[in-house]
Amino acid sequence: MELKYHFRDASLAALALTHRSAGKPNNERMEFLGDALLGAIVAEMLYETHPKATEGEMSRLRAQLVNGQALAVMARELELGERLKLGSGELKSGGFRRDSILADAFEALVAAVYLDGGFEACKDTVRTLFADRVAALPRSSKDAKTRLQEWLQAQGLPLPQYELVGTQGEDHARIFDVNCVVAEPFAMTAAGRGSSRRLAEQDAAELVLGRLLDTQDGR
Amino acid sequence: MELKYHFRDASLAALALTHRSAGKPNNERMEFLGDALLGAIVAEMLYETHPKATEGEMSRLRAQLVNGQALAVMARELELGERLKLGSGELKSGGFRRDSILADAFEALVAAVYLDGGFEACKDTVRTLFADRVAALPRSSKDAKTRLQEWLQAQGLPLPQYELVGTQGEDHARIFDVNCVVAEPFAMTAAGRGSSRRLAEQDAAELVLGRLLDTQDGR
Repeated sequence: MELKYHFRDASLAALALTHRSAGKPNNERMEFLGDALLGAIVAEMLYETHPKATEGEMSRLRAQLVNGQALAVMARELELGERLKLGSGELKSGGFRRDSILADAFEALVAAVYLDGGFEACKDTVRTLFADRVAALPRSSKDAKTRLQEWLQAQGLPLPQYELVGTQGEDHARIFDVNCVVAEPFAMTAAGRGSSRRLAEQDAAELVLGRLLDTQDGR
Repeated sequence: MELKYHFRDASLAALALTHRSAGKPNNERMEFLGDALLGAIVAEMLYETHPKATEGEMSRLRAQLVNGQALAVMARELELGERLKLGSGELKSGGFRRDSILADAFEALVAAVYLDGGFEACKDTVRTLFADRVAALPRSSKDAKTRLQEWLQAQGLPLPQYELVGTQGEDHARIFDVNCVVAEPFAMTAAGRGSSRRLAEQDAAELVLGRLLDTQDGR
């Protein structure tokens, strides 16, 4: 993999690859900016490629792509380790191989592209780097009830129960309230709402699934 | 306060103000994108206005500006509550006054500007909205040792101890390692490094201060 960007100001790229162990200035401030830019650009990629995904699904997909370990892998593909500027202590202890140092340098490099070439250049660069990874993401076209059912079955657990709690509004604009109840060991209830019973059930299933997956991820 | 942006596609603005209680499509997906854009644009503002702030300081300043409560205040200043589209249940229970619903609509509106007018338009809009708040932030030009000392004194606690742990390297490129030790009830030690003893102490003080402030914020 290669960074398809040519810096006008090479000192920005050099700063992005300077770890704090090498003194000041270093890439710590750039890392803060790069992390935020990366979050926004990958968010837009997912917004476009996953038009049916909910906010929670996009958030989980982004966390799969943008985390310390994943960014360290990308930093290695770009061979950033070889170009890092480290203090002598980190150099001796092999800091150029450390995930956190590599991931930070990757984020700082994203900021350097932004500062050097502007948002569109940064977006193009990030999109090129993430294109294959985004394309490889599951494109869940299955509805929430189906995904919840499959997830519970995969854990060997009973199916969820959907209970109609009530309806409100006139006939032409009725609103349905439905609870989705998951048994032990999760023992979870979520309230869904929709303009039909089916949509209210999907809504509740989506909420339960989100919480179950968050629980599983230890979040 | 006013949103200084004129939508070409008014349906994007309308979608940004449609809460999930009103059915689908609604502003949930846009909120995800808007939250990420807001994070990046405010990060850049702080990067520019606080050239001496560390990553941790910028992160804390951003959290002061971009959080549910602060965004709800801004949504009220923009009178978004009056323009929200809510389902009948939320309408009756006063959902247009709820912080979380208002903050979500604010974030979605940021995404709507981006989708309608591109990054520069979105950045201009966000910068205008946040200009006064960013200008009102403390501009800590004090060094880390001074800030740590003041913080400890304000809590009625003893001053930190700085201990030279060792030095390495040749005379012309010597590296100093210093520990900053804070007494009970925090009982914290952080290792700093620098090309002079003073810089190493600043480095260690910065680390300790960051941890103390994080502890205080319950993070």
